[in-house]
This record gives sequence, structure tokens and C-alpha cells, in this order.
Amino acid sequence: MTTTAAADQPPRLAVTSGEPAGIGPDVCLELAAGAWPAELVVLADAGLLAERARLLGKKSDLPTYDPTGPALAGRICLLPIPAAAPVEPGRLNPANADYVLALLRRAADGCRDGEFAAMITAPVHKGIIIDAGTAFSGHTEFLAKRSGAAMPVMMLTAGSLRVALATTHLPLAAVPAAVTRERLTQVLTILDRDLRERFAIDAPHILVCGLNPHAGEGGHLGREEIEIIEPCLTALREQGLNLAGPLPADTLFTPARLQTADAVLAMYHDQGLPVLKYAGFGHAVNITLGLPIVRTSVDHGTALDLAGTGRADAGSLRAAIQAALDIVARHG
Amino acid sequence: MTTTAAADQPPRLAVTSGEPAGIGPDVCLELAAGAWPAELVVLADAGLLAERARLLGKKSDLPTYDPTGPALAGRICLLPIPAAAPVEPGRLNPANADYVLALLRRAADGCRDGEFAAMITAPVHKGIIIDAGTAFSGHTEFLAKRSGAAMPVMMLTAGSLRVALATTHLPLAAVPAAVTRERLTQVLTILDRDLRERFAIDAPHILVCGLNPHAGEGGHLGREEIEIIEPCLTALREQGLNLAGPLPADTLFTPARLQTADAVLAMYHDQGLPVLKYAGFGHAVNITLGLPIVRTSVDHGTALDLAGTGRADAGSLRAAIQAALDIVARHG
Repeated sequence: MTTTAAADQPPRLAVTSGEPAGIGPDVCLELAAGAWPAELVVLADAGLLAERARLLGKKSDLPTYDPTGPALAGRICLLPIPAAAPVEPGRLNPANADYVLALLRRAADGCRDGEFAAMITAPVHKGIIIDAGTAFSGHTEFLAKRSGAAMPVMMLTAGSLRVALATTHLPLAAVPAAVTRERLTQVLTILDRDLRERFAIDAPHILVCGLNPHAGEGGHLGREEIEIIEPCLTALREQGLNLAGPLPADTLFTPARLQTADAVLAMYHDQGLPVLKYAGFGHAVNITLGLPIVRTSVDHGTALDLAGTGRADAGSLRAAIQAALDIVARHG
Repeated sequence: MTTTAAADQPPRLAVTSGEPAGIGPDVCLELAAGAWPAELVVLADAGLLAERARLLGKKSDLPTYDPTGPALAGRICLLPIPAAAPVEPGRLNPANADYVLALLRRAADGCRDGEFAAMITAPVHKGIIIDAGTAFSGHTEFLAKRSGAAMPVMMLTAGSLRVALATTHLPLAAVPAAVTRERLTQVLTILDRDLRERFAIDAPHILVCGLNPHAGEGGHLGREEIEIIEPCLTALREQGLNLAGPLPADTLFTPARLQTADAVLAMYHDQGLPVLKYAGFGHAVNITLGLPIVRTSVDHGTALDLAGTGRADAGSLRAAIQAALDIVARHG
């Protein structure tokens, strides 16, 4: 039986520990020291977590999650999901690929059903999931499909800087064709709506990058700005969106520009994320917009070489939990 | 008659004032207050400079450049080149497009002939030059042709961060095909050589970005890393180059990575320059490698709306002059 969180209870958040050979379990164990105004439910294999705690010289004493009881602020508990094979830190094993996906399915379904107010994800390793036979292009796309969202929007935040992406995990050669007027319209509509609803920003001001260098420089460096992006922005402005652009990406990310903006829309992954991660390394958060559920994530990868060493930094996971809590609180 | 700078004379540097309707003349006039261990020769229309000085409430008393006399440290003088039409701040005029190019030709030829030790360029407006009938994709390419260089390499610096580009001013859709093994080999060879010769760095350590997001993620997000970049890097390492990569651009620009690196090679404009300009806004410098002459540039555009207002910031021009002086000093 599942208890839907009542208004007077603290929120209950699911934290998926991700790829077991990476630092996901390590950073989840770091959370034990924190005190949160929520109950954190860590999804992981129990033996894995105990063994990782031993390697890190920590106690492993998370109580087992009880879905029938009330959520308790400050409690961190374990929702055990068994791995398929023993885990060695740093060594990927395709036998555990479905275990990683099982964590996500359980958390997403719990969010959908009201058991969890949000889910926070530690990193997975796409390659090993694909090698094990599952088409997988990222958490964002997986969770969209699982939760029935037509168009997930990936946004990263670091402090006051927010960068959303019009396209995500595509080969660079596939990007220009993917930047369609239809996609931009959907992404900007979701970004505008979620900034209002999830971030409580009235009339969010969004800076939109061009696709080409110098935003095409009047058509001399590409025509997508003229033929696709500008008409799209014009139409959306008529619907009340507060948009600037298309702007050259290399002059947009400057203090004077950014202080007037609530978010930036980059056209593709490496146009927007290097500067975001440079600006916010160690405390950047990945937030999926456009989903019926609340999902945030760390901004780093599995860091296989750091698993079990004690050198993993839980700063991004803490920031991701805080970002989820902020959204949940604004949602009311 | 041209005097080649003798070893005991201070260097003589050419400063091209660029698009006359933009802030180039303004920031050149800001230089008057500085004292440099070099003679700065500003190339501009004399009447334009006088009128812009009047608008800014400044005196316009630059002495006229005398190519027959010795260079004098601390002197700033004017090499007058007539504009074709009157100049109105903020208003582009195709009639003056060839004037802008004449500034560049004179400075580049003076560098080639030993009259100037280096040239520093204020911004031009590509669109108006192209509209006036000259194929022009940027200073970098123009100066390469003028000075007979086969492959110019654009590098921007901001403090200790240096970012070079494998491709420059191309529509995004043309980038993947332009990233060939031959081009990468040329660019990395020039970058390595110029870091040694112009920046006095032994065995420069260069971080090379992938083309695709996550550097292709083992082939799942594009195969250019596997088929083009990795074989190229392997071959260059065998020749002694100190290269890391291909690396994901969004995790490369982090303090831990960067502190081990002398430069980053980005595959294209908007992969490398947003973070560089974010890191160094107001003091970033554009340096063209692979030329027989020394050329540095401001990192900003013409800022037509700021011309004549007194709100233009000369910080980037000062940084570009200092960068040129540093290179000239290292050259001996």
C-alpha cells in the first residue's frame, strides 16, 4: 500500500543511486551526515551500499524504507532493490544494467503515484546500458517515456544561471536538422511555463542563442536564424513570451546580459553546458522540465576511477536535492 | 622610407581602429591616457578621430606618425588613412568598407616588412564588408591571405585560459565535414609550435575537445572521435605532442582539468568561445597563430550602439596590446 503525502507531512524524495560501479553509491552515503526538511529514500542494492560504506570507512546503518508509515523529516532510509551481479567499484558490468533501470522505474512510478514528491538521480553510464541491449540516450529521455511526457526539456542551473537545451544527446551533425520551428516552439513553451510554475518567476525573460556562430551574422554564417528561429520567436512573443534573440552564444554569457535574464536557451549540448559547468562546477544541477513529475540530477558522470576511494564530492547531489525541495515547496 | 626597428629601439605596434561607425575609434582614443613600453601607431581617418574625440569630450592631439624616425616608447601617434565617406556613429556605410580593409592592409604589410613588430585590431563589421562586395569571413582569414599563411589558427586567451579553434566562422551544419584529420593535424601542429615559440611553453599540454556531446560517448553519439580525432591525436603523440583527448567539452572546462593544461582545442566556435568569454569578459584577447606576423585583437564586436557615447570599455584593447607586447618580447 502506498501512502500519498499529506499536506502537513514533510515531502518524501527518492534518490536513485545510479551506476553501482560509479560514485553514485558513495555520494548517497555522504548524505547520511546531512539534515533535510524531508525524508530521503535512497534506492540501492543493500549489500552494495554496505560494502561501499565499508570501503569508505563509514557506518552503514540506513533504516529500511517503510512506505506505509508517515514521512519523517531528516530521516534517510533505504529502499532495497537487488543488483543482478556482485559490484566491483570502477568496473562496469552489463549484467547490472537492468538494475540501474529498475531504480529509475521504481522512483519514477513512485513519483507518478504520489508516493514521492520528487526524484533525484545519481549518474548512470549510458554506454553499459546500451551495450546490455537497451536503447538509452539518457535519464531525461527515459523518464519522459516512462512518465508519458511528449517533450522533456533539459535545464541545468548553477546559482542564478539557468541554461536549457533545445536539443540534447545528438551527434553534432544531426543538430541543425533537429532545430525545427515545431521543436523550438514546444521547448520554449515548456521552459516558459515551468519557470513560472516551478520557479515562481513572472514573465520569465529568456535569452535564446542562435544556432550558428555569431547567430548567423545576418545570414552570412547560416540561415537557420532567419528561416527558423526568428519566425518562431516572433510568433511566441505574440503569445506573450518574453524572449530575446537569437543572440550569439559567445556574447550572450556575459554578466550584463545574464543579469537581465531568467534563463538561456542553447540550441545544443556543447553550446550551453561548458559555460554552465564552468560557472557552477561542483554545485550545478540538472533539472528535467516538461515532465509530470519533479526530477533533478547531479551534473557529473559516474567517475568510475573515484568509486570507493573517498574522493567523490557530494556537493552536486546536495544541490540537486535542494533544487528538488525548492520546486516541491513552490508547487505547494 | 621605412625604418626597420633596431634591437635597441622599443617596438612599434600598429593599432587598426576598425569599423568607423563602431567603438573602435573610441577605444583607440582611450589609449592616449596609457603609457606603454612601445610606440603605438593608430591607423584611422584623421577627421573621424577628431570628431569622435569631440563627442567624447576628449582632446584629439595625436601627433602624426613619422615612419622615418625612431620609435619612441610611450608615444601614441596617428597614421592617417582617409575614409571614403563621412562617418556617423552607429550607422554602417558600405562606402567605408574598403577603408576598413585599407587599415588592415597597411598594418599587415607594415608587419611583413618589419616596420611594425605586431598589429592589434579593433573590431570590424563583417556584414557591411560583405554587403559592399568583398568576400570576408573575418580578420583571421583576411590576414592569413594577405600574409601568405596556409592555415591561420584562432586562439582566445583570458588570463591563463587559452582556447584555440579547429574551425572558425562556418555555419554549424558545415562543421562536421570540416573537422578532417588533415585540418586537425595542421591546427594542432601550429598550436603546439606557437605555444612553444610565442608563449615560451615547453612541451605544451593541450586538451582536445570531442566534436560530439560527451565526446561521442564511445560512438553512441557520433563516430568522428573514433574515426578522425583519436587516430589524429595518436599520430601526433608519436611525434612528441602532449595531447589529452578527445574529451567532453562540458567536463573539460573545470578547474582541476584546466590547471594541468596550457591550452584547449575546441572543434568549433560556439563550443569554445562562450566559456572563454564568460571567464574573461572585458579582458579576453584574440590571437592569430600560424601567421608570419604577430596579430592580436579585442574580443568584442563593433557595439554600434555605444559608439560616441563614452560607454565603450577599452579593457580588451589594452589586454590585446599587452598580449602582443608579451609575444614580441619573447620573440626577442
